[in-house]
Amino acid sequence: MNYILKDENAIYYECGYSSDNALYLKCGSEAFFITDSRYTVEAEEKVRGASVVTAANLIAAARKILKKEKIKKLSFDPKEWSVQAFEALSAKRDIHFRKIPDLSHKKRIIKRDDELKIIAEAARLGRKAFKALEKEISRNGFGEDEFRLTYMAKSILGNYGAYDLSFDPIVAIGANAAKPHALPTSKKLKKGDLLLVDAGLKYKRYCSDRTRTVYAEKNFHFTTEQHFKSRKIQKAYDTVLKAHDRAIAKARSGMKAKEIDALARNVIEKAGFGKYFIHSTGHGVGLDIHEMPYISKRSKTVIEDGMVYTIEPGIYIPGHFGIRIEDMVTMVSGRAVVL
Amino acid sequence: MNYILKDENAIYYECGYSSDNALYLKCGSEAFFITDSRYTVEAEEKVRGASVVTAANLIAAARKILKKEKIKKLSFDPKEWSVQAFEALSAKRDIHFRKIPDLSHKKRIIKRDDELKIIAEAARLGRKAFKALEKEISRNGFGEDEFRLTYMAKSILGNYGAYDLSFDPIVAIGANAAKPHALPTSKKLKKGDLLLVDAGLKYKRYCSDRTRTVYAEKNFHFTTEQHFKSRKIQKAYDTVLKAHDRAIAKARSGMKAKEIDALARNVIEKAGFGKYFIHSTGHGVGLDIHEMPYISKRSKTVIEDGMVYTIEPGIYIPGHFGIRIEDMVTMVSGRAVVL
Repeated sequence: MNYILKDENAIYYECGYSSDNALYLKCGSEAFFITDSRYTVEAEEKVRGASVVTAANLIAAARKILKKEKIKKLSFDPKEWSVQAFEALSAKRDIHFRKIPDLSHKKRIIKRDDELKIIAEAARLGRKAFKALEKEISRNGFGEDEFRLTYMAKSILGNYGAYDLSFDPIVAIGANAAKPHALPTSKKLKKGDLLLVDAGLKYKRYCSDRTRTVYAEKNFHFTTEQHFKSRKIQKAYDTVLKAHDRAIAKARSGMKAKEIDALARNVIEKAGFGKYFIHSTGHGVGLDIHEMPYISKRSKTVIEDGMVYTIEPGIYIPGHFGIRIEDMVTMVSGRAVVL
Repeated sequence: MNYILKDENAIYYECGYSSDNALYLKCGSEAFFITDSRYTVEAEEKVRGASVVTAANLIAAARKILKKEKIKKLSFDPKEWSVQAFEALSAKRDIHFRKIPDLSHKKRIIKRDDELKIIAEAARLGRKAFKALEKEISRNGFGEDEFRLTYMAKSILGNYGAYDLSFDPIVAIGANAAKPHALPTSKKLKKGDLLLVDAGLKYKRYCSDRTRTVYAEKNFHFTTEQHFKSRKIQKAYDTVLKAHDRAIAKARSGMKAKEIDALARNVIEKAGFGKYFIHSTGHGVGLDIHEMPYISKRSKTVIEDGMVYTIEPGIYIPGHFGIRIEDMVTMVSGRAVVL
């Protein structure tokens, strides 16, 4: 299959290097990494299995290669290309373009052993960062607002500049946690608050992802054992934890993703919180923070050994509180192993 | 003109609110803000001059409105829409779609007075942050690597979580500064190094942008008066500063952007560094860090009062050093005023 890639992580996956202005072109047994002169030196050092081509106009350079190689069919991801960029690529109409949504994500759905090692290390560092963050918040976080708490999470997850983050951490107090993608506010952390932290870091470009919801008191821990004063919150918390644990315990290779979603969702529905679980049970994690497989109500993707995804059920009561517990798992010998 | 917008800042500009999953549709005198249920409550509070529509499938909701309003012509930005999203929007082929690249950026090129006030405040806060950063690096930065220095810049520009950043700061030492878009490395700052810092913050969603290159010694300052031990570096520095000052002093409303580019570029070319000035003289700044007008060799955009852009000439000697000096200006009564 001949194909062309534009996304930075998609290109990195193919040849071990990328830049913020690059194209990757696979033509039969040949491959080309096209970038501008700012990146030539690094590209020539680091690109594996592809010829480095330097050009001011990357798309024009790609077209030139396509012509020279007499390519008649080329696959691309219609999510990756803007209308304008694709028009520049396809202007001559001498090539049949085949749309493959998620072309690169599909290739990346089963992780190689070397990728699994890196992801496991990312997860370990993420876990370690949560340990450091619980200490920091316990000591210096009470009385601080979500902006400052988010800054603490960024500092510690990034190990003060050593790592990039998988995404901007979510640090939400009480009712703010009821928004799954809460943005920070000036709400301040008090003892006895519910505190939700969803954060991850990148290790060798691969993402970690983790969420804990805790009863914030002096010397709290980001473990899954939490005791809330409110019985209503505790009931919701126990339900989310049960859904989380059950999905991990019962997930099997060979299941469809929607069956794994149902493992968690059924617990929450049976407890009467069904309408408050307003997102999917999980998503794949790798070079991108969201990739395949998607553990959703409708996904028919068959789960296989070597896939990596999150299990993150949640209950969100608008105006009151939100709870989410998230871990990353990988499938090994048919079962889900927490990373 | 009827048009549809997808970009978060483009939508914010129209109605004073946006979310990471929204569309804005302008049909004659009516306007619609379409988002999913996570954002309905906030949208209804904050959207001005548009009806809030909640939908799971935003594009389907837009099509429904287009049909109901009997819209036959609709403009869109082909850079903003992926091939896939645009196909979903245009599948019925009952509407004539007009491509306007940079549709929103074109509308935003001249800033309103209220925007100018916000941008001036963003620039002031950015300047203030550089003052704080010079102190912090002077005290704690020597012996630290670019990762840690970048973290310091992020912390201080963001005022420890209070502000978002315009972009990831560039903090580059010596030869690393020769890459205009340098990524941090483990190179450590020593006394007597050349240090380049390019950083900005967001205030009420508007960006600041500023670059200084300094001779890093105890109690250095991010001013434009710098004394390097190397005569070669000093010559390049003086040339960049002269180019920067001349462009600001001689820029006039009514000039084409390429004439302003030439004001800086000619100084650098005359000094014999022409081939080491490898980018444009500047770019517009607003809700996006890069917007119109582009102060480039080829831009015929006529500069007008109320535009905001950077003047940032540079000289980059590969493997040796890089110098860039950047300020934001706005055109007032025909002249460039530094923000």
